[in-house]
Amino acid sequence: MDLLVTGGTLLTMRGDQLGIVDDGAVGVTDGRITYVGDAVEAPDPSDADEVVDAEGGVVMPGLVNAHAHTSHTLLRGGAQDVPEIEWMNRALGPLSAHADEADRIAGARLGVMETVRGGATTVCEYADEVGTLVEEVYQPLGVDVVAVETINEVPDDRSDLGPRELYPFDREQGEEALSRADELFEAFSDDPLVTPAYGPQALDMVSPDLLETVQRHAKERDAKLHLHTAQGEREAIQIEERYGADESTVSVLDDLGIVDETLVAVHCHGATPSERERLANDGASMLGCPSSIAAIDGIVPPVAEFSDYGAAVGVGTDQAPGPGHHSMFREARTAATLSKVKHTDGTALTAWGALRMATVGGARALGIDDEVGTLEEGTRGDLIVVETDRLSTAPAVNSPMHTAVPNLIYSTTGREVRDSFVAGEALLRDGEFVDADPEAVVAEATERARALYDRASENWREAGSELVDAVDAGWL
Amino acid sequence: MDLLVTGGTLLTMRGDQLGIVDDGAVGVTDGRITYVGDAVEAPDPSDADEVVDAEGGVVMPGLVNAHAHTSHTLLRGGAQDVPEIEWMNRALGPLSAHADEADRIAGARLGVMETVRGGATTVCEYADEVGTLVEEVYQPLGVDVVAVETINEVPDDRSDLGPRELYPFDREQGEEALSRADELFEAFSDDPLVTPAYGPQALDMVSPDLLETVQRHAKERDAKLHLHTAQGEREAIQIEERYGADESTVSVLDDLGIVDETLVAVHCHGATPSERERLANDGASMLGCPSSIAAIDGIVPPVAEFSDYGAAVGVGTDQAPGPGHHSMFREARTAATLSKVKHTDGTALTAWGALRMATVGGARALGIDDEVGTLEEGTRGDLIVVETDRLSTAPAVNSPMHTAVPNLIYSTTGREVRDSFVAGEALLRDGEFVDADPEAVVAEATERARALYDRASENWREAGSELVDAVDAGWL
Repeated sequence: MDLLVTGGTLLTMRGDQLGIVDDGAVGVTDGRITYVGDAVEAPDPSDADEVVDAEGGVVMPGLVNAHAHTSHTLLRGGAQDVPEIEWMNRALGPLSAHADEADRIAGARLGVMETVRGGATTVCEYADEVGTLVEEVYQPLGVDVVAVETINEVPDDRSDLGPRELYPFDREQGEEALSRADELFEAFSDDPLVTPAYGPQALDMVSPDLLETVQRHAKERDAKLHLHTAQGEREAIQIEERYGADESTVSVLDDLGIVDETLVAVHCHGATPSERERLANDGASMLGCPSSIAAIDGIVPPVAEFSDYGAAVGVGTDQAPGPGHHSMFREARTAATLSKVKHTDGTALTAWGALRMATVGGARALGIDDEVGTLEEGTRGDLIVVETDRLSTAPAVNSPMHTAVPNLIYSTTGREVRDSFVAGEALLRDGEFVDADPEAVVAEATERARALYDRASENWREAGSELVDAVDAGWL
Repeated sequence: MDLLVTGGTLLTMRGDQLGIVDDGAVGVTDGRITYVGDAVEAPDPSDADEVVDAEGGVVMPGLVNAHAHTSHTLLRGGAQDVPEIEWMNRALGPLSAHADEADRIAGARLGVMETVRGGATTVCEYADEVGTLVEEVYQPLGVDVVAVETINEVPDDRSDLGPRELYPFDREQGEEALSRADELFEAFSDDPLVTPAYGPQALDMVSPDLLETVQRHAKERDAKLHLHTAQGEREAIQIEERYGADESTVSVLDDLGIVDETLVAVHCHGATPSERERLANDGASMLGCPSSIAAIDGIVPPVAEFSDYGAAVGVGTDQAPGPGHHSMFREARTAATLSKVKHTDGTALTAWGALRMATVGGARALGIDDEVGTLEEGTRGDLIVVETDRLSTAPAVNSPMHTAVPNLIYSTTGREVRDSFVAGEALLRDGEFVDADPEAVVAEATERARALYDRASENWREAGSELVDAVDAGWL
């Protein structure tokens, strides 16, 4: 046995509840879990190469950050507190247009290390040329990644088009992106930590024919199709103009045969309740980014509803400009808190529901629940040890209830994550990266961000978002 | 000069905006700020007994936790994810009834140290026999406290009364509490860090006559009257029954002459928009606890609205069972995020608005803004140094905008607070308590919590909240 983590309270996520084991142990051999259960019945510690004492803590599956564009972490703090209509084109856009490939890598490295520091061991990364981020960031760090290649047929700069003018489609551009997605499967076929997937960006950004082609490619490779679905008014107008006034994103997807178990529907806040139910009933899974959609749109994504429909639901941190962070415990808390106010009900999305959503829920939605998201014999050795005896999380009581369950969600700062392992290899020990240098990563990102803002400053000011006024008034 | 903090970006909160000073310095002499401004014009560091290098960080007023019942921190994780109607009487009550004085002190010590670790230097503590907490917790730690003595005339156990049965009033009990409140002013007259105040608990829990008496005592001492105001349906029914079907909490308070600049109205989510506006226009200030009210009631308190009306508004963490935490950066983020979804508007309660609310806003609402909440010459030397070059908060860019402003609110875990000073005395240096032992505090709280839950277990189970079912089902 390579690793034995012993002595903590296990939240295995086995079965339909949390699978709580007091004074439990987890053993990992050759990257896979070979023991989960009571510590007293575990293999002898002397037979393990490495023994981790988790007493006074919780041992649980590593968190699954189910939807993130981490490159934008370089622009954290650059675009928030603006009207939704300004966010993309007048606040973030004038900055991100100046990012080069090295900037995108530096931003992704910062974002991925942040999310790992907070307990994530799997990230679903959605990016153009995502393979570069896998090679430059994920593989060196040893983090599980679902690598989604963005596929669209529209020009990056659409600022000269009115909202009712249809985006032009460039099939060649879409085919090139599809080829990049296809190539991921060969490029990373020997790395079990990389799961490629297809990312047709949104229904207003790909033609029906290409979308069907992408779906066929996905099904041939038993891969998922990640689609930003019903993202709001801008998209809804495009769909009306292209497909008719009675059509919506979900109705068109339905007609095209896209709604099935291959579909991973992201966001969904623009779908009606009956459309959401239809997506769930037809086997689609859902990914929500509560902090992001709340920050940018002032809307609570329907993660609680999808979960009630029985769909697989994961949560993710999206991009840092807006929500600000890549911390999965914080995201889970935000999902629960926002769901409660959406439904005026303190029982809407409980701590235990949010814990499942941030682990096995995300893994199911991404189609990787045979590998991650639970602690079970045979699954990958992805797990974290979280201290529950800190100022922020104490007191830990196991009877008559486990206070750690709510406290993990509602109380953690994210800095209680002590140890983290992927396939049994340590990413974090005692809260420190084993094989990465956060100070150097922060320093590089800061230097690059300063240079980028400097290059972008004039364009940013010309774009004239409300943030320009805020700066001039002494607010920002 | 006793202390010179030099080299960071200052957010002074002077004037109506953030009072940003790049490369600034703050000097403290005899507990008071004697220099604020550019570092290059600051007194020579060799003239200061202690010099703190804040380069790469933000220097700002210590955060003001404007409403908290910290004793309940011992029960963190004990009552949440239940229907609002169960929270007090069937979830928290059966546990808190078993807390003794030592438990309450241990819980308060845990909660106060947690909030200090996250950047608070002032806490408004609302408790029965609050003087004991001041002596046992606040004075030993050296933390600023607004000490509010709870005053009510109702029995603790009201579980045998139907919702439309009027609570009986015990004037003697109320007078005793009023005397305790009066005595605070003499007991702590020689401690500038203690500001006593009066806490008539809520309009349904005190008689009009006692409330008027309390107000008179408050005005005689130039103190504030903190009143939980319009807390929801349970209170509204009592007011109807006692004062008539056309009356509400705010209408009765108005008739009694309680609504003026002495009133600090807490929560206010049950008040109508026009009542809120009336409270604000008549000079009352407001305290909101967004995490708590969202967790327990599924409601967003009207902090953004009160702020728009021009009222002084602070935010606080209330009690840990429910919201789970006493972190003020987290509370400020929650206030902003919840306000955005309440108004379906990404610009509702901005990062800069939330920063002011968590500092000078709270200080104004508590009536102590001459002392704390801003960095100005003559105010108390209460300040914090926050690192903005961490994985969670980088990159820090100062041009064309200060990314630290949004990142403090939306990105901090709370563990970026490096140094903290009250009246120039260090509470935290390099993230560690200078003169307190968190491990011992956590250990005592944990031991006491376990014993308390053990004593309370049978009563808790008999009370039969939904949490009992959750435990039995394997969720908790």
